Amino acid sequence: MKLASLKEGGRDGTLIVVSRDLSRAVRATGIAATLQQALEDWSNLAPRLAALSQALNEGSADGVFDVDVAQFAAPLPRAYEFVDGSAYLPHVARVRRARGAEVPESFYTDPLMYQATSAGFSGPRDPVKVVDESYGIDLEAEIVIVTDDVPMAVTPAQAAAHIQLVGLVNDVSLRNLIPQELAKGFGFLQSKPRSTLSPVFVTPDELGDAWRDNKLHLPLLTHVNGAWFGAPEAGVDMQFDFAQLLAHAAKTRPLSAGTIVGSGTIANEDTSKGASCFAEKRTVETLESGAATTPFMSFGDLVRIEMLDRDGNSIFGAIEQRIERQPLP
Amino acid sequence: MKLASLKEGGRDGTLIVVSRDLSRAVRATGIAATLQQALEDWSNLAPRLAALSQALNEGSADGVFDVDVAQFAAPLPRAYEFVDGSAYLPHVARVRRARGAEVPESFYTDPLMYQATSAGFSGPRDPVKVVDESYGIDLEAEIVIVTDDVPMAVTPAQAAAHIQLVGLVNDVSLRNLIPQELAKGFGFLQSKPRSTLSPVFVTPDELGDAWRDNKLHLPLLTHVNGAWFGAPEAGVDMQFDFAQLLAHAAKTRPLSAGTIVGSGTIANEDTSKGASCFAEKRTVETLESGAATTPFMSFGDLVRIEMLDRDGNSIFGAIEQRIERQPLP
Repeated sequence: MKLASLKEGGRDGTLIVVSRDLSRAVRATGIAATLQQALEDWSNLAPRLAALSQALNEGSADGVFDVDVAQFAAPLPRAYEFVDGSAYLPHVARVRRARGAEVPESFYTDPLMYQATSAGFSGPRDPVKVVDESYGIDLEAEIVIVTDDVPMAVTPAQAAAHIQLVGLVNDVSLRNLIPQELAKGFGFLQSKPRSTLSPVFVTPDELGDAWRDNKLHLPLLTHVNGAWFGAPEAGVDMQFDFAQLLAHAAKTRPLSAGTIVGSGTIANEDTSKGASCFAEKRTVETLESGAATTPFMSFGDLVRIEMLDRDGNSIFGAIEQRIERQPLP
Repeated sequence: MKLASLKEGGRDGTLIVVSRDLSRAVRATGIAATLQQALEDWSNLAPRLAALSQALNEGSADGVFDVDVAQFAAPLPRAYEFVDGSAYLPHVARVRRARGAEVPESFYTDPLMYQATSAGFSGPRDPVKVVDESYGIDLEAEIVIVTDDVPMAVTPAQAAAHIQLVGLVNDVSLRNLIPQELAKGFGFLQSKPRSTLSPVFVTPDELGDAWRDNKLHLPLLTHVNGAWFGAPEAGVDMQFDFAQLLAHAAKTRPLSAGTIVGSGTIANEDTSKGASCFAEKRTVETLESGAATTPFMSFGDLVRIEMLDRDGNSIFGAIEQRIERQPLP
């Protein structure tokens, strides 16, 4: 099934079930008011949501309406936890090579992951709001999974059973704030503002055999201002699968229902696949010609991130958003 | 007023107003079901909660019951954002001096702060659960403030008006996991498990003139296994006040209602005041004698953190909790 949230009913939106072709939807409020509520009682409510999804796809549901993605909030307009990995080591390796550094051997066995802000996610048509263009505005096209309640210290095999939904994120980064922030040693804070989620999140069964080994084996397609930017294969060069990332996050704490785990920006060894962020594109330019020539994004720029199935149908709907200036308060 | 949450009614608990002397309480459910809900409509609901608080303290409220802190959840059993500063530079300076490093000049103008997990806070009598004693279990006694909705890029002067509640936290740290984690460059994740909040959070007016300049000018008292551990002055050596910390956190994102901002472990230049964490105590030992002699905590150890007013009355109630082994799932 495919789940989304309308911008109505409060800060957590209103849960809807969306048809497989993303054209029609039905409110799920008889089952759960919000996606967060559904995840908190997932084993009971998922079968009921699945039945509603089946009725919707078969044309037998009541209260069906046409989808207008502009009315969509993020599927989880806010969450209690977002931990973001950096599982595509070609990206890590290139960034390091560009500054003359090696990838530590431990990076192949111990995932890179940071605690990200989860207090607000933008909807798929909301603008990315930034006060100052000089912060170095970048997109990062990634895959995320969403969990129900996960006990502390689960193994990867145990963690796999807690992957309930899959979606996309534009993990916005402010690149020019990163070096000074990371140099302080405490990770990202100001350099990682709010991110944007795909119109719908889907259960893994919607992905067919593209979901296997706890990875999503399809290209993630990014356009900027209408021009192709990249389509790296998300199932290739992913050093840690989502079950491993989830187990890493849960090593010393339980994870509560609605936790979002990100893959990190998708990147392949094969640079002909393009990039999922400007930092990657600029790094490839630096390695090829000695200097980055593509600037970061400007106010007015348009980002589009989506994933198509083998038949060319959009799975999650598209994140399509402009970069906008945020006025000072 | 003093606010707390009972362990009933769901994952966010049930909001209660607690008497100034912490002996009696009354459910606030006619006003807001949970503290999170109250913070989301604070300007409307705070006056109504204050009226209930006045009635409770005057003995004219209905439905009053005796307080049993063991029935308390954390005031916010979960939150959407927790950002923790490190505002007491004597701690930072000593830790660096012990390893032969200097404090960068920028640390005096640019706050250290990290994105912390907010998905679950333990209640004041809940145990600290850790899988493995060898992780280096430490407490950190800190002050926190809680906000209503804060716009992006507020100034410190604007931020001050959004400090709605003040409380205490035991920001549990797993010291032996920190060096390897921070060396990866992405900040704390596994090394910072769930933290514990004080029984009640209070509005700043409850603190009288001990709350001024956006700091809390009282000692924070820590005992371990019944023995005095430290009582550093929270109003002394705090390089950045809470308004500055809040503005730092909001530079590139709005902060949503219920955001928790931590001060960092309280530490004074004057080491006779004792410590608010074992890492600090061990650092002082290292500087004085060349080696740390006090080990980190063990299963069964009892932590007590509280703050007394000038008359010796507990303001927030005490965090009093044992370290316990978490069985593997």
